Amino acid sequence: MITLYDLVFDNDVRPSPFCWRTKLALKHKGLVWRDEPMGFTEKDKIAFAQSQTVPVIHDGTHVVKDSWAIALHLEKAYPGKPLFPDDPAKAHARFVNGWADTSLHILIFPMVVGDMPQTVRPQDRDYIIESRGKRLGTTDFATVQKNAREKGVVAFRQALEPVRRVMKEQPFLSGTAPAYADYILFGSLLWPRSFARDLELLDKEDIVWAWRERMLDLFDGFGRKAKTAVA
Amino acid sequence: MITLYDLVFDNDVRPSPFCWRTKLALKHKGLVWRDEPMGFTEKDKIAFAQSQTVPVIHDGTHVVKDSWAIALHLEKAYPGKPLFPDDPAKAHARFVNGWADTSLHILIFPMVVGDMPQTVRPQDRDYIIESRGKRLGTTDFATVQKNAREKGVVAFRQALEPVRRVMKEQPFLSGTAPAYADYILFGSLLWPRSFARDLELLDKEDIVWAWRERMLDLFDGFGRKAKTAVA
Repeated sequence: MITLYDLVFDNDVRPSPFCWRTKLALKHKGLVWRDEPMGFTEKDKIAFAQSQTVPVIHDGTHVVKDSWAIALHLEKAYPGKPLFPDDPAKAHARFVNGWADTSLHILIFPMVVGDMPQTVRPQDRDYIIESRGKRLGTTDFATVQKNAREKGVVAFRQALEPVRRVMKEQPFLSGTAPAYADYILFGSLLWPRSFARDLELLDKEDIVWAWRERMLDLFDGFGRKAKTAVA
Repeated sequence: MITLYDLVFDNDVRPSPFCWRTKLALKHKGLVWRDEPMGFTEKDKIAFAQSQTVPVIHDGTHVVKDSWAIALHLEKAYPGKPLFPDDPAKAHARFVNGWADTSLHILIFPMVVGDMPQTVRPQDRDYIIESRGKRLGTTDFATVQKNAREKGVVAFRQALEPVRRVMKEQPFLSGTAPAYADYILFGSLLWPRSFARDLELLDKEDIVWAWRERMLDLFDGFGRKAKTAVA
């Protein structure tokens, strides 16, 4: 049985874009797993993996940290229903992975940070204010968020241009069916969706909106049914 | 015989990143072509193709504009030595294409625009100052360039992170050998290399530097031997 350590906010909300990659990869392969929620101040739970961050999986004798390493592990251990059908698909996913981690997340983070203190578990609130305050150079997250959203939504939509180019030629980033490259981008979008208030990163007319709808329907609505902190 | 319309600066320098994609694709397939240089004020030369920009190719009865459309045409007409070995490779190249056009070129352009008036053909100088001046809102290109380079080199190196992630796992963006995804990025780097003075976009320790060296060696040093306006 696979155990997945997954970041948890208050009310069992699970926002981590990196953990979403792993959950979607597990679903893709038809694997079941035992879920182990971990709050920001419970890092002792993953100390056995020499990791400070989730996702971490414990799979038999294998302990694997980092979403990309987990994807590679799952592909090797469970080769059916491949996440990367071949080497070019793997290179494509690796590129998308690096692009999301840097170009996308750097835009999303300041647009959602203001909603974090109210949505993390109460016992994690001080930790978030201190750690994210250090990163931002201020603890006035509400102002950071307000300012970031003014230009950030437009910048985010522009940053998606490479995705649009691909989706003009095929329904999913990975081809005619979703695979790991799609789960990466979808995870990045499920992150704000799970707890950021009054934020819509996509335009309804955008080809990426329609793709997201298809992704939300996958695996019996696995993403769509996920708990959110948003009313 | 294929005719390629290729942007020309003074002294027969050929900087266009989009034309480089096509020239490298032609080399990849082992095709020969007739070269037709076109200055900025000679757009009448490509009017027959209903295009305002190069590359344009004339291949038998086919007239094709836009580097991506040309790549698709070449792949169909000359299927040997594929630019995209399969559909995932094509999606990968399409993504890299959109990413270079937007994320990379937006960073490179202001860092090289100051060197354009002195390096285009004398008869194209006024056109460049007027058209690029309109885009920039100023004709003081030297100041734009100076300011852009202050933070732009660092930003460019950061933007290459997705490339680095892939190249940690394989020697070329396309896999064990170069293909179209590599030509896209290489074309973007040959652009400043051909005419921008005192600008080095890469760090010698960067894995991308070593990749660029390999790319410069390709096709008997085709990129390395290209004329430049730089002493």
